[in-house]
Amino acid sequence: MLQSESALRGTVGFLMPEGTFERVFSELDLARLRSESRLHLLSDRPLRPERVDDRALLAEAEVLVTGWGSPALDEPLLRMLPSLRAVAHSAGSVRGIVTDALLDRHVSLTSSAAANAVPVAEFTVAMIVLAAKRTFWAAETLRSSNAPVDAERAWPTVGSHGITVGVVGASRIGRLVIERLASLDVRVLVADPTLDHEQQLAIGVPCVPLEELAARSDIVTLHAPALPSTRHLVDRGLLRLMRPGTTVINTARGDLVDHEALADRLERGDLVAILDVTSPEILPSTSRLWSTPNTVITPHIAGSAGNELGRLATNTVDEVLHLVRTGAFRRPITIAALALQA
Amino acid sequence: MLQSESALRGTVGFLMPEGTFERVFSELDLARLRSESRLHLLSDRPLRPERVDDRALLAEAEVLVTGWGSPALDEPLLRMLPSLRAVAHSAGSVRGIVTDALLDRHVSLTSSAAANAVPVAEFTVAMIVLAAKRTFWAAETLRSSNAPVDAERAWPTVGSHGITVGVVGASRIGRLVIERLASLDVRVLVADPTLDHEQQLAIGVPCVPLEELAARSDIVTLHAPALPSTRHLVDRGLLRLMRPGTTVINTARGDLVDHEALADRLERGDLVAILDVTSPEILPSTSRLWSTPNTVITPHIAGSAGNELGRLATNTVDEVLHLVRTGAFRRPITIAALALQA
Repeated sequence: MLQSESALRGTVGFLMPEGTFERVFSELDLARLRSESRLHLLSDRPLRPERVDDRALLAEAEVLVTGWGSPALDEPLLRMLPSLRAVAHSAGSVRGIVTDALLDRHVSLTSSAAANAVPVAEFTVAMIVLAAKRTFWAAETLRSSNAPVDAERAWPTVGSHGITVGVVGASRIGRLVIERLASLDVRVLVADPTLDHEQQLAIGVPCVPLEELAARSDIVTLHAPALPSTRHLVDRGLLRLMRPGTTVINTARGDLVDHEALADRLERGDLVAILDVTSPEILPSTSRLWSTPNTVITPHIAGSAGNELGRLATNTVDEVLHLVRTGAFRRPITIAALALQA
Repeated sequence: MLQSESALRGTVGFLMPEGTFERVFSELDLARLRSESRLHLLSDRPLRPERVDDRALLAEAEVLVTGWGSPALDEPLLRMLPSLRAVAHSAGSVRGIVTDALLDRHVSLTSSAAANAVPVAEFTVAMIVLAAKRTFWAAETLRSSNAPVDAERAWPTVGSHGITVGVVGASRIGRLVIERLASLDVRVLVADPTLDHEQQLAIGVPCVPLEELAARSDIVTLHAPALPSTRHLVDRGLLRLMRPGTTVINTARGDLVDHEALADRLERGDLVAILDVTSPEILPSTSRLWSTPNTVITPHIAGSAGNELGRLATNTVDEVLHLVRTGAFRRPITIAALALQA
């Protein structure tokens, strides 16, 4: 529920780069907001703090809709937002916009992390299936040899029947991956030191220490947040525990993996890496990972893109409508949850 | 049910290349057969018609377990199999072993097509997800440019949210793909001229003519059998109906696609092809498809391989046990079904 007791007037404004707004929100989304009589849409376009006309509207805004590239809601900006009581973020992580000053204001907060988790989980599970089949290796080997390809001779395991998939991090995305893996004939392990005993039971698959997960899994998929404590979670020691033929999939954050240690292990030729994220985001042309064997690098595409942005917009509009109708977001973010999020 | 009224003695023999036997069957599978008292396993190894000792055993065999590379059960071979009443095929298609002479003998027949359909459907759905995200293009573009990649600018659609997937052929695999697509937010169309009105209703997704499917689908995935009538089903005319950005996935049979017409369309740069099968099976190094843009070629790996072979063995053992216990296979193949199978 909103902290203040007074009823909302329902003033809603967008605060995000014009480009984000155009990519994510459609005319249909705006029409849904306008059709709610308890809601007053301040503008059909994002408000810009640097424009004098928009400042009057920002001063009225009780609900801000933010997104990729929105400015951090810091002290100077918050002074321009005296009416602010809720923020609905149309992207996944709220890291870029949340400040201590915002938390001090006890503003209600929601994000589209659940909607954004869907394509990441879909992408991850698809990569698990194809990695298990040695698809990328097979395509490359066929292209270079132009002859029949014998994956069973080249790899200790081929296929996804009965293999073990280790999910690192029972985050929102990690849980969705676990859920979707139920459609495959695989064993699932999870490692997440933040789970208490009750949460471990609720998750429905065995929770094991990270080292055990690394040693037992055919595929290790990362879904942990980027925090100081998770930096280089996959380090030289953990990579050493992985059996020949193991695949590491990272659709989370590049900093989770020690790239030098990974490159060293990849050069031995017995590990597979599928990296949708790297650190830095665009690897320099000198990075060894461009030439290590069995390395697939994609440019941070697992998250929402194209038509999947519509899912973010729909979720954000749903949340704003729910707020003005009931006084609360459907999926509010708590400060405790914030500390553990990517 | 078996045609003959007399009870089975339960004599079972393997007839397949040694290599197939070793890849597919484990000691556990043999143990399961041996543990059934109504079943008499003639040998722990495949029988070889060219060996005198094995001929006596083949003459006794009521049930033959066949697999990849088994010889066609033609007149000369059938003369060596006077007791034969049932064939349990441990691979998908029985095309290679079934002859008119076998059909004349009214031998019961089953295959592991259902078990073999599982990895093909998994592979296909994984490719649908990644193709929708423009993953292969993005990986290649990132590698060559070393700069941020903008799929939304390059392609008319990006992402799988709300796209249309056209399934060509409501075969066993086609139906399994349709079933698994329910976990994605996609629209599904199916084209299959062999479905009657009742079957069309039962399948649960709109059935449309092939031309309409080609024009409306973002992704066209082929699951039709290779028959004279389906040769070059995807021809120049059908390719012309596909919108820019369409992806064609072939995990069925190479002959379904006119490769020259496909190469011409791919060279325009507005189509994507994911080909797990080609004709011939290994494309010559001179094939244009090695250099057309947006072309992913894998070496016929969607079907069972590695640990997935265990699923075929389990299914075959289950069928043989069911036969000796009840007198019938769980999933017998009818002659009518044979005519439509790949």
